Amino acid sequence: MAEPSRPPAPRDTLARNLRRLRADRGLSQEGLADLAGLHRTYVGSVERSERNISLDNIDKLATALGMDVPHLLTEHGQ
Amino acid sequence: MAEPSRPPAPRDTLARNLRRLRADRGLSQEGLADLAGLHRTYVGSVERSERNISLDNIDKLATALGMDVPHLLTEHGQ
Repeated sequence: MAEPSRPPAPRDTLARNLRRLRADRGLSQEGLADLAGLHRTYVGSVERSERNISLDNIDKLATALGMDVPHLLTEHGQ
Repeated sequence: MAEPSRPPAPRDTLARNLRRLRADRGLSQEGLADLAGLHRTYVGSVERSERNISLDNIDKLATALGMDVPHLLTEHGQ
């Protein structure tokens, strides 16, 4: 089904990592948003790849999750 | 001089990597901007850490430089 030859778009990699790391920590979208100083609906839209998020906000999310920015943007496989 | 305990801000890491990778390729700011489909003054402001660049534009710069996004945001030391 998936095309193996084309790497995923950065928005999609970020969205997948956010959903996974947030779930690993037992955080709701609202809980993560509060930790990062962002709005819940904003975090939801980033997790759906809808938002062209800025680097400063990626950094806020990474800090809230205890990760660094490159890790949050790296495809970690299935 | 530098504080070793605090990692550099993502904007600064990106700025440093852009300047280095662009120079490695013998590209001017205008040349990189053309390859990435961005404006020369915009690339200059990103290289001075002035701009809160979006993920889609980071991806354009990474593609123009033949790098992936996480690499472009990783601190590679002195």
